[in-house]
Amino acid sequence: MLKLYYAPGTCSLGSHIALEEAGAAYEAQRIDFSKAEQTRPDYLAVNPKGRVPALVTERGTLTETPAILTYVAQSFPEARLAPLADPFEFARLQSFLSYLCSTVHVAHAHSRRGARWADDPAAHVSMKAKVPQNMADCLSLIESLMFTGPFVMGETYTIADPYLFTIAGWLDGDGVDPTRFPKVLDHRMRMAERPAVARVLAVVQA
Amino acid sequence: MLKLYYAPGTCSLGSHIALEEAGAAYEAQRIDFSKAEQTRPDYLAVNPKGRVPALVTERGTLTETPAILTYVAQSFPEARLAPLADPFEFARLQSFLSYLCSTVHVAHAHSRRGARWADDPAAHVSMKAKVPQNMADCLSLIESLMFTGPFVMGETYTIADPYLFTIAGWLDGDGVDPTRFPKVLDHRMRMAERPAVARVLAVVQA
Ligand SMILES: N[C@@H](CCC(=O)N[C@@H](CS)C(=O)NCC(=O)O)C(=O)O
Ligand SMILES: N[C@@H](CCC(=O)N[C@@H](CS)C(=O)NCC(=O)O)C(=O)O
Repeated sequence: MLKLYYAPGTCSLGSHIALEEAGAAYEAQRIDFSKAEQTRPDYLAVNPKGRVPALVTERGTLTETPAILTYVAQSFPEARLAPLADPFEFARLQSFLSYLCSTVHVAHAHSRRGARWADDPAAHVSMKAKVPQNMADCLSLIESLMFTGPFVMGETYTIADPYLFTIAGWLDGDGVDPTRFPKVLDHRMRMAERPAVARVLAVVQA
Repeated sequence: MLKLYYAPGTCSLGSHIALEEAGAAYEAQRIDFSKAEQTRPDYLAVNPKGRVPALVTERGTLTETPAILTYVAQSFPEARLAPLADPFEFARLQSFLSYLCSTVHVAHAHSRRGARWADDPAAHVSMKAKVPQNMADCLSLIESLMFTGPFVMGETYTIADPYLFTIAGWLDGDGVDPTRFPKVLDHRMRMAERPAVARVLAVVQA
């Protein structure tokens, strides 16, 4: 059986929802960041990067949100979570995942994880100060040019939807007013009403 | 015909080599960063993110290195640049691409692009100071746990190879001694001998 390592409030929520939407049989194992469990030897044996998510499969462990999401979509094709037969549409989806992972998530991470990129505490303060502007710039681009509607990629729900839902859920905490991005906010509301999302949130927020 | 927008010394090299290895018919259009061409309205009409690479296809423009690489592999299946029929191996490949894009490339970018994440010039100095350590930590993980050999993913050359080649080429400039990572260095040497790589470098370095 698949096993997902997750932590509340983190990007692992996207993979968690995708597994639930796919109807996958999986176990979810919480990692407690308040106890720094992600840095303990037993977790580093699962994921040497010391991060969540990690998905243990019978063939080995996968890390990185875009890879886990794509694995779920390809392993449960009947759930139709990605345009698997169309290389252009599939690449457009990968581009969205990659932008969230490499630019939007990274912009957010500068609010609380500045120590990754600088040792000077004053630099962390300066990084944190720029997070609202960077997150707003990223969300502006998504709202105006990337979000197709009603779902992220268009008519069909894909793995991009739980990933955007996850990251859009960080806006308030990052000091960005989510009502500035009406399409993304409406998407967030509709996502929260999906039974699969509600089931995952009940577990994660417990 | 496909059209790749590239700039010398940047991550666009990975996509450029992949197109050449695939035997694709494509045109390569240089963007001159010394003239800030990536910020001009005509380029922002191609890629509103103001970055390279961008790949113009007959169905639209693709951005983000992992997405472009995956598009090339899926559009030219006869070049066998990805394990397209095996969801686990495909996800393992996506995980590697995603790590390079979201962690390694981002670590490198803090040396010269600190203004993305902080306004204070002292913060840029502090970020730059940490780049050698972060790049070395990333390459250690790749060298010890991710690089399968003889190619990145194992016996078969994939789109991960030109991407690692590109990023490993930044080590010296980032103040990291590449001889600390013998497998990655050997890979870089073997990659440079490939005719497709030599053809692309001749164009990019001209
Ligand atoms: N590129 C990775 C990033 C994973 C990541 O940074 N996860 C964060 C939570 S959102 C984490 O585990 N942080 C723990 C730490 O930094 O100690 C992905 O997309 O999966
Ligand atoms: N996540 C993007 C990053 C693209 C990127 O940052 N490209 C850099 C060159 S390596 C760039 O165009 N920088 C121009 C600038 O920042 O003005 C990818 O992997 O394609």
